[in-house]
Parts: sequence; structure tokens; C-alpha cells
Amino acid sequence: MINLHEITIAARQAAHTLAVLDRTAKDGALQALADLLLEHAPEILSANAVDIELAEQAGLAPPLIDRLRLSESRLRGMADDVRKVAALPDPVGVVFDQKVLPNGLQVHRQRVPLGVLAVIYESRPNVTVDVSSLALKSGNAVILRGGKETLHSNRALLKVIHQALEACEIPAGAVQFIDSSDRALLLELIQMGDEVDMLIPRGGAGLHRFCRENSRIPVMTGGIGICHLFVDETADQKAALQVIHNAKTQRPSVCNALDTVLVHHAIAEGFVPALIGHFQGSGVAFRLDPAALDAFQAQPVAGTEVSLAGPEDFDTEWLSLVLGVRVVAGLEEAIGHIQRHSTGHSDGILTRDPAHADRFVQQVDSAAVYVNASTRFTDGSQLGLGAEVAISTQRLHARGPMALVELTTYKWVISGDYHVRP
Amino acid sequence: MINLHEITIAARQAAHTLAVLDRTAKDGALQALADLLLEHAPEILSANAVDIELAEQAGLAPPLIDRLRLSESRLRGMADDVRKVAALPDPVGVVFDQKVLPNGLQVHRQRVPLGVLAVIYESRPNVTVDVSSLALKSGNAVILRGGKETLHSNRALLKVIHQALEACEIPAGAVQFIDSSDRALLLELIQMGDEVDMLIPRGGAGLHRFCRENSRIPVMTGGIGICHLFVDETADQKAALQVIHNAKTQRPSVCNALDTVLVHHAIAEGFVPALIGHFQGSGVAFRLDPAALDAFQAQPVAGTEVSLAGPEDFDTEWLSLVLGVRVVAGLEEAIGHIQRHSTGHSDGILTRDPAHADRFVQQVDSAAVYVNASTRFTDGSQLGLGAEVAISTQRLHARGPMALVELTTYKWVISGDYHVRP
Repeated sequence: MINLHEITIAARQAAHTLAVLDRTAKDGALQALADLLLEHAPEILSANAVDIELAEQAGLAPPLIDRLRLSESRLRGMADDVRKVAALPDPVGVVFDQKVLPNGLQVHRQRVPLGVLAVIYESRPNVTVDVSSLALKSGNAVILRGGKETLHSNRALLKVIHQALEACEIPAGAVQFIDSSDRALLLELIQMGDEVDMLIPRGGAGLHRFCRENSRIPVMTGGIGICHLFVDETADQKAALQVIHNAKTQRPSVCNALDTVLVHHAIAEGFVPALIGHFQGSGVAFRLDPAALDAFQAQPVAGTEVSLAGPEDFDTEWLSLVLGVRVVAGLEEAIGHIQRHSTGHSDGILTRDPAHADRFVQQVDSAAVYVNASTRFTDGSQLGLGAEVAISTQRLHARGPMALVELTTYKWVISGDYHVRP
Repeated sequence: MINLHEITIAARQAAHTLAVLDRTAKDGALQALADLLLEHAPEILSANAVDIELAEQAGLAPPLIDRLRLSESRLRGMADDVRKVAALPDPVGVVFDQKVLPNGLQVHRQRVPLGVLAVIYESRPNVTVDVSSLALKSGNAVILRGGKETLHSNRALLKVIHQALEACEIPAGAVQFIDSSDRALLLELIQMGDEVDMLIPRGGAGLHRFCRENSRIPVMTGGIGICHLFVDETADQKAALQVIHNAKTQRPSVCNALDTVLVHHAIAEGFVPALIGHFQGSGVAFRLDPAALDAFQAQPVAGTEVSLAGPEDFDTEWLSLVLGVRVVAGLEEAIGHIQRHSTGHSDGILTRDPAHADRFVQQVDSAAVYVNASTRFTDGSQLGLGAEVAISTQRLHARGPMALVELTTYKWVISGDYHVRP
């Protein structure tokens, strides 16, 4: 019987300990975790094999099963990632906005952990280790609720995480796992607004909506990306094709993969056929607006699936090898399309005109706005943050990749000489 | 008939305009507003007189009526505050975390407005002008929902605000007022999570809880302060009395006013009677724990109301001339008491021991932690932020006074030379 009340009390107590732990202690636990992951590889892999077998029996699609699968090399990758987190600077205790007020009061802000995090996620078992290591490094206790497809893998990973904590005398309450996929229990958890400080759902749009509608804990939603690239009249067209190809195909199943290409009408006649030709043999299916379809039909390319875009197509996050193409009158219409259809994740312009780049950057208000680069860079480790716990597309607290600093808050520290307010 | 759908659409459109407005235009509208507040003083004051009359008829308590009342001098103060906001630096467009990644990608974060704010508040009509001017300066559209006690004053103020916006060609959707205190309408508003970016309740604990439990908009809660000062063994006792007196009486009805004094047992015998004596004639009533009561009874002081603290007294935000006193064994017990009873608003230590000050600052995790100063400084303008829209006691997004920067978020801007992710 899972008792959320006990879990949150243990988490709060651990959070008090973690908040004042120094960097050496936290990094020591992370190094221990990396070692133990490799040492206990056989147990973790055999637990994972049970999940894989159950998934196959349940008829899960092969790409989903692949996401569940662990291997020696994936475990080595997980251990390396934990060591990378250990090598990152400790965000806790960092002082900023230091000043002395005219009355002599000394004021600064100091970074402190958020406290207790709850993370609800699906499938990939590496999330369990990623999130645990980021939480530990940032001094937060975390309550994990993974998907039922990875239950055995997660149990084995948690055992190793608890061994690492124990070896470094960190309370087990620092990382706790809810060993149930009971929806009523999930609902109860996300209503514990006094016990948990931040809720991070990692999964599909349905999970995000469920959390937003039912949570009494402040929620960080994100990870839903309808992403655009606008090919301006002045773009280097050859280079643009490579960027679009990368943004669409380098990993089509993720949130920062490209969904829609907007093409300046002045270059559409040549660029649309070139674009479709460039994807020959890639398996990408195109959804074209009427103008793009006209341009294509004037110079058709064989071997590529092309169809007229339906009414919902420009509002769909494809997460697969589908790409929408629309011809626009120019920069203004491209920005307008993005304002209406983007989920505010990652949108970019490909151009040689600095004034157009500038206007695009000012008027497109997405978490990540690109000039002449693939949308695939919206990622904590790609943007130099070392790792990420999620990608936020909401506006409060953090936007885009959330790494260590984004798992902290701050307190004001005010020192005086028995100052009173006049 | 109030149509929230139309209101939020107008707000979103105005937000797009405001987001790219330059500083001159925003400050121009603020200066116009300050001028118009003085120019239209007669209309505003006569509208306010209607609210006051209705409040008197309804039998509102005199301190509450005083909070509603406007005067020539209060209007001048409001106009001055608007000009102060105009003089503050514009947070929008500020670039930070600028870097060039090893692959040559240029990355920075840039401050942008949050978008559309909703502010639910009670009583004081100056909030209408304060919040409007901060929202405008930070490039946000705002939907205001004031209390029914100030309806006529707010209508008159909104007329002036709209004149100022119109004079500067800013859409009226930038500041909108919900002219109704219908609870069902409030519920509908706070569920518009796709249309509004941040909800700020300003009022009692009930309003905060209602918003936390029902809102689908990210909520900033705060403004509830059970505030503590711990008088350490080494404190300068005479100076400590002045700080405590200031923290309790300088404005007892506000959230950063002092609620509980914790006294180190080694000095309790002398300090408790001195404390109570120091408040003679101030109208402050004391609630003492048994040890403090013992100390008092050994040296009783006449003319002060003193009683044994009840079981709820150390968990009560007094907002009035009541002060709890508890004797503690030392620093550790003081910190433990604060961890259990504080609302995380403002807590301080009075001490001459730097090691004690340091430990207190590290272990007390309130929005504002004080060393040798009155808790009354937790205020945007006192802490050098120029103004404030609210004081947050939650941990996400902002903590303590929320001023202009706290009404913004950021976007990542990534520029490359047709970079692709390997």
C-alpha cells in the first residue's frame, strides 16, 4: 500500500538535508551512482529484459520497445551522463544581485533548491537516472512516477540509486519511486500543493493537460513542439536544404523536430521542388498547401509521397517523417503563421538579410528562436547547460531547456545594523 | 454582459503590440497617466466618495474604510509612483547569458514580457494604478478584477488609464477591468490557462487557496506572512527592542509585520520583561509561551495586555497589534520553530555572532532572511526594485517582492551559419 503522506514527509526531510549539503558530498553520491550502475549492470539488464518481454507480449510498436531497451552501452552512456552532472558547477549557494542600499542595508539573492520535485514520465528508463542525478546535484528531493512499461527496470535502477545514497549517508527520501500506475494515486499526488514544490510532467499532450487541469502543485509544462523554419527570399538555398533535412530527420520522434517549412513566394517555384527532391529516399511524406503543391506539380519528383495539406495539418506535431510546406507572401505572413500555429517551442528563419533576422527574432516569441540553424539544438546539453530535466514551453519560471539552475529558486538575504523602516 | 472570451482576445492582441513597444512609448503613456490622474482628480474623488458612502452604509470597519479612501494627496502619491515606474529601466529586451558555443553557435537569452496577466485583488484602489503601470512598463497586457468595495473608484481610474493609453495610441486591451464581482465569472477567468499567462491573487489566504485549487493559469501566490525575529544571546538588546517595535507597529496590518519573537533562554529573564515594558502604551497585546510568561511574572509591567499563548497562536498571521513571544533553548530550536511555523515570507535573527547569523541564513529558507534588521523591509521599493506588483511566497518563478523583471520571462536566441546537429 503506497502512502503518499509518508512519501512526501520523507521527501521534505531529505530536502532539508540536501539543501545544506556541500558540493563534495553531492558529487560523491553521483560518482558512486555511476560506478554502481556499471557494477550492477547484469541485474538492471535482466530486469529490463522482463519489461521488454512484457512489452512484446502486449504488442507494443517496435520503436516504443526500442525506447525501453537498455544495453551495456546504454548503461555506460547513463553512467557517463551522471559523471557529467557531477562535473557541472553547483548552482546552490550562488549569490547574485548583491548591493548596498542608500540606508546601508546589505542585500543579495542566493540560490537555493526548490525543495521537493515530482516528475511524472513515460517509457525511457534513462529518465529515472537523469532526473535523479539532476535533482540530487541541485539539492532537491524528487518523487518519481514512471510508466508501467518500465516498472522492472525502474525498480532495479532505484535499488542502485538508493545504494549510492546510502553509501554517502544521504537519506533514501531524496529519491523515491511510486511503484504504481494507479491513476487515482497520480491525481492524489498532483493535488499535494503544500507538500510538493514543482511538478514536471514528461509525456504527451494528454498528460500535460491532465496535470494543468488537476494539479495544485505549480506545474512546468512543455515538450510539445510544432516547430517551423521560414526560408526567406535571401536564404542560401543549398544550405537551407541541409538545415531542413537535419531538423526533420535527425531524430523525428522528438519535440524539437521540424514540422512545417514556410517558403517565401519569390523562391517557391524553384525551392519547393528542390526541397522535395532533396528528401528523396528519406521516407518523408509531404503535406503541401495549394501554392506549394502548384510549385511541385510544375516540376514533380518521383519517389516521394506528396499530398495536399488537410485543415489540421499545420496544427499537428508530427513526431514522425511528415513535413508540412506552405508558401507565404513574405516575412510578415511567416511570422503571422508562426504566431497562430506554433506551440512556442522552437522556430527559426533561414536568411541572409540581417534586418529580416532581427524582425523575426523580435516578433516570434518562442522558447527558442533560431537564425540559420536547425531547431534540433533546443536541448540542455546542446545549448551548453550540461543536461536537462525537461523543456518548458510555459512562460513562468523557466523557458526552453531546464537544467540545474532552473531547478533552484532564490532567497533574499538582508543584513543590517539593527535597521528599522522609517 | 461580460464576455471573457472577447476580453482575453483583446488582451492577447494588445500584448503583441506592447511586446515590441519601445521604452519611450511606454514611458510616454505613464507620464500621460500621471498627468491625467491629477487633472481628473475631482471625478475620481467623487466616484471614491460613492464607494466610501456605500462602505459606511454596509458597516465596514473604519480601518477598512480608510484603506478605500482617496484624497488629493493620495492621488498625488499615486501619480508620483507612476512617474517612478516610468523612470525605472525597461526590463524588456535585456540580453543575458550570452555565449558562443564550441561549434560556433551564438546563444543568448533575451527578456520578453510574460504576455497577459490577470490580477485579482481587494480593497485599495491604488492597486489598480500600481499594477497597470507596472504591467505597461514591462510590456504585459493585464486583466484586472478588483473588489466590489472600490467599484466606482476603479471605474473612474480605468477611464483615466484608457485616456492615457489612447493618447499614446496603445490599444485599450492593454488594461481591462472586469466590472463584476460574480464568483462564477472569476472561476471562469482563472480557468483560462491558454489565454492568460500568469494569475496574481492579492488578498487573504482564502483567495490564494481558491486560486491554487481552481486555476489552470500558473498562479503566483504570496502575501501571507507569519514573520519571526529570533533574539540571540549576543544581540544588542536595546537595539533589538527598537527593531522589534518597528517590525510590529510600523504598519501592523501588512504581511511583513512581525508575528512572533523567539528569545534565547539565556537572556529571557531580563529581555522578556524589557520587551513588554518597551511596548507600554503601544496597544500591543502579548501572547507568551509558559517560559516567557514566567519571566514576565517575575518582573510584571502594568498597562500591557499579556496572556498565555493558545495552541493556534504561533500559527496565526496577526495583521494587528498582537505579538507572540516564545523562549527557545538556542539557535537550533529557533530555526526549528521557524521551519515549522513560518509561511516562508520574512524571518530574521538579531545577533552579534557572525557564525550564528550565517547558520540562520543558511538554514532558514524564507523568501527574505534578515540579520539585524526589521522584517518590514520586504517590499519592492524598500529593496531597491522601485515598486512591486505582489510579494511571492511560492518557490517557482519569483520569490519575495515581484517588480518589473519578475513580470518578464525570456526567450533563447540562437544564431548560426546554417548549423545542423550532428
